[in-house]
Amino acid sequence: MKIEGFSKLSKIEKIKLISNTLFNNNLLLTDKLKTFWHSDNKTQKLFDEFSENTISNFHLPFGVVPNVKINNKIYIVPMVIEESSVVAACSRSGKYWFDRGGFKAKVINNEKIGHVHFDWTGDFDEIQTLFADNIDKLYLEIESLQSSMKKRGGGIKDIRFKNLTNLEPGFGQIEITFDTCDAMGANFVNSILEAVGHKFKRIVDRKLIGIGELEIIMCILSNYTPDCLVRASVSCPISELDDNSLGMTPEVFANKIYKAVRISKIDKYRATTHNKGIFNGIDAVVLATGNDFRAIEACGHTYASRDGSYQGLTDCKIEEGIFTLTLEIPLSVGTVGGLTSLHPLAEFSLDLLQRPSANDLMQIIATIGLAQNFAALKSLVTSGIQKGHMKMHLMNILNHLEANESEREQTKIEFSTKAVSYSSVREYLGTLRNYQ
Amino acid sequence: MKIEGFSKLSKIEKIKLISNTLFNNNLLLTDKLKTFWHSDNKTQKLFDEFSENTISNFHLPFGVVPNVKINNKIYIVPMVIEESSVVAACSRSGKYWFDRGGFKAKVINNEKIGHVHFDWTGDFDEIQTLFADNIDKLYLEIESLQSSMKKRGGGIKDIRFKNLTNLEPGFGQIEITFDTCDAMGANFVNSILEAVGHKFKRIVDRKLIGIGELEIIMCILSNYTPDCLVRASVSCPISELDDNSLGMTPEVFANKIYKAVRISKIDKYRATTHNKGIFNGIDAVVLATGNDFRAIEACGHTYASRDGSYQGLTDCKIEEGIFTLTLEIPLSVGTVGGLTSLHPLAEFSLDLLQRPSANDLMQIIATIGLAQNFAALKSLVTSGIQKGHMKMHLMNILNHLEANESEREQTKIEFSTKAVSYSSVREYLGTLRNYQ
Repeated sequence: MKIEGFSKLSKIEKIKLISNTLFNNNLLLTDKLKTFWHSDNKTQKLFDEFSENTISNFHLPFGVVPNVKINNKIYIVPMVIEESSVVAACSRSGKYWFDRGGFKAKVINNEKIGHVHFDWTGDFDEIQTLFADNIDKLYLEIESLQSSMKKRGGGIKDIRFKNLTNLEPGFGQIEITFDTCDAMGANFVNSILEAVGHKFKRIVDRKLIGIGELEIIMCILSNYTPDCLVRASVSCPISELDDNSLGMTPEVFANKIYKAVRISKIDKYRATTHNKGIFNGIDAVVLATGNDFRAIEACGHTYASRDGSYQGLTDCKIEEGIFTLTLEIPLSVGTVGGLTSLHPLAEFSLDLLQRPSANDLMQIIATIGLAQNFAALKSLVTSGIQKGHMKMHLMNILNHLEANESEREQTKIEFSTKAVSYSSVREYLGTLRNYQ
Repeated sequence: MKIEGFSKLSKIEKIKLISNTLFNNNLLLTDKLKTFWHSDNKTQKLFDEFSENTISNFHLPFGVVPNVKINNKIYIVPMVIEESSVVAACSRSGKYWFDRGGFKAKVINNEKIGHVHFDWTGDFDEIQTLFADNIDKLYLEIESLQSSMKKRGGGIKDIRFKNLTNLEPGFGQIEITFDTCDAMGANFVNSILEAVGHKFKRIVDRKLIGIGELEIIMCILSNYTPDCLVRASVSCPISELDDNSLGMTPEVFANKIYKAVRISKIDKYRATTHNKGIFNGIDAVVLATGNDFRAIEACGHTYASRDGSYQGLTDCKIEEGIFTLTLEIPLSVGTVGGLTSLHPLAEFSLDLLQRPSANDLMQIIATIGLAQNFAALKSLVTSGIQKGHMKMHLMNILNHLEANESEREQTKIEFSTKAVSYSSVREYLGTLRNYQ
């Protein structure tokens, strides 16, 4: 049956309706969901209003990575992630590179972009000329909208007309580029695009009557921002790569990392997972600082496919005995506006990072992405990714099967060189117990 | 200064160290972070142990979408997302399609994949023959690892040798495909890959002495699972698309949606944002059910670029007066294992969805992605995306500028057809106040 007026119900009424509909009117449901509410009503109201139809808060672990040295400044970086081993991996990487010169990071550019997408049934030369003749009117229309951004040093950088009829009959765009300073700027960009779209439609409808019909299809920012780019890198002589945990010479290690990165360039099955690991690091900082990880992901993956095949985002170089690993990625993030100051822990994250500018934050996020990639590659080409995971997994299984101290010790030895699975451990424990 | 032994500190000690290092020893920091801890110690310990170096929990709003009809079954779908308007958009879409036949969804296949990546210095025919001759030994090596998965009806589907020297000299793979039943299966897949890699290395080292050197570079699952595919769609006669909010005929509306989808196929700037919106819906359900959104994102975006250019993930068709919108996307998710039962609200989410199988969950997630896409396109091609956003934004600005009732009313009328910005509203209020 269709539920009517759900959004109008109070939070408690919503929970009761759910309980009625699906949980046999279980009264404990409200109590359970309530335990995840914040104890301060005002703070809880804040979370309730971030989104719609909210009934509780989903808790994600908030962790920190110490010892992240970027351009010689040391950070403690906040990470929000539910997956185990990611924070530990970044911490190991942070410490490892702390002793080898730290991370270097650099913002290459910081430009946002958006489009008025339209369909024009007439001659494109006519409408393009009209656009050129009326560009001042378009600027005038949006002057008040950008005045406050201009005061902060940002605003519109360019407005251009694009004839895209080579892609699709009648298709064109007005493309606008922006400097949004320390804001991610989505509302700013979209408001300006819509105003430009409406104004352009009015001008065309008045001036090109009988010559063609203009239909504005949509006005929307692009999350693909290849000119909002940051680069992070680590580098050291190969001989210094050793840390007594490689199990191979530093030369072999460097070469294996090089090959692993190379594989991510030629095999998209590997590239996807290679980049997934990078985003494990990136998204955790993006979330912790109140930014939008869907935007960051969509942009980064489109960038990874920019050359016509989907590729790994890091590059590895071995030259004259020097090992270098680099991550270049577009990251459109903000340190003002949006959730950055509304979410109490996002605000704390930015305090922890000593109030970074958007450019600083781009550098920090790219660094953590790189740190994660290095840690993952290091595990993969040395002990394998499962060693750490499986140590934890074995402990969980032994707890579950209520192994005693002596059984634990023997099982640990048995499985130190053997792959762990629930059934193989249970079987081994069974033989142990029969034998005793 | 480098911090040593951070991970060994207790949670309180970690917070104190942070407070010492960056917050002038502010004692309130602990209190602040503590307010986000769960009141039950055992539950909090659970969150602490999901990840590492944890000091608090990051709260994300947990909301629900009622009226989601999929293959004639009605769901209340949980969503975890910090971005406003996404849950509301999916709710509108759910209700809209409820009256138009609901969503249809279908799992096309459900296969996971992973690789042993290796480098071989000898002749590839030799190693490929050795592989073929020893395939039984490889299966035997992993028999105990897959016994429990086999009991559940899953396990290894195929093991094959891939000569990839056309891509890179010496490069080859052992590719293994899996059925992991209702689990996402990362640990299972990785354990088997590592066992196969080690065994293969031992066989080659013994049998092909003097013929070449085998180096196992890495053994790892792929997050790119194009054969773990689900399709969701909505369809109805164009005449039924009207809901008195279009502001245009249903024919024009259907055509604008069609064009908007078409643009996402030919312009990657639009494709990125088009897909970002789809993932707004998808990730929110992925998070709510304890699955890994980085894996889902990486896979979906690689899939979006599979034809050599990055494209929108939905397809729109208008044929014989019938409008159809379809989303086809690979989604590798689990409903057992991992966080699905460990996180109390992930467990609640799966209860809310009436304990779905992995295939059911794939259908639900794809449906919400499609619902989000339809709602976004509907806003974009009719009123524009900013109308809803800006109504909220205007309220916030008026609150901030402490406008009285009459000022509010006049400002709302003034800006009903004008774009909202902080400075334009302040300016308008200024003229109002001077005039009075």
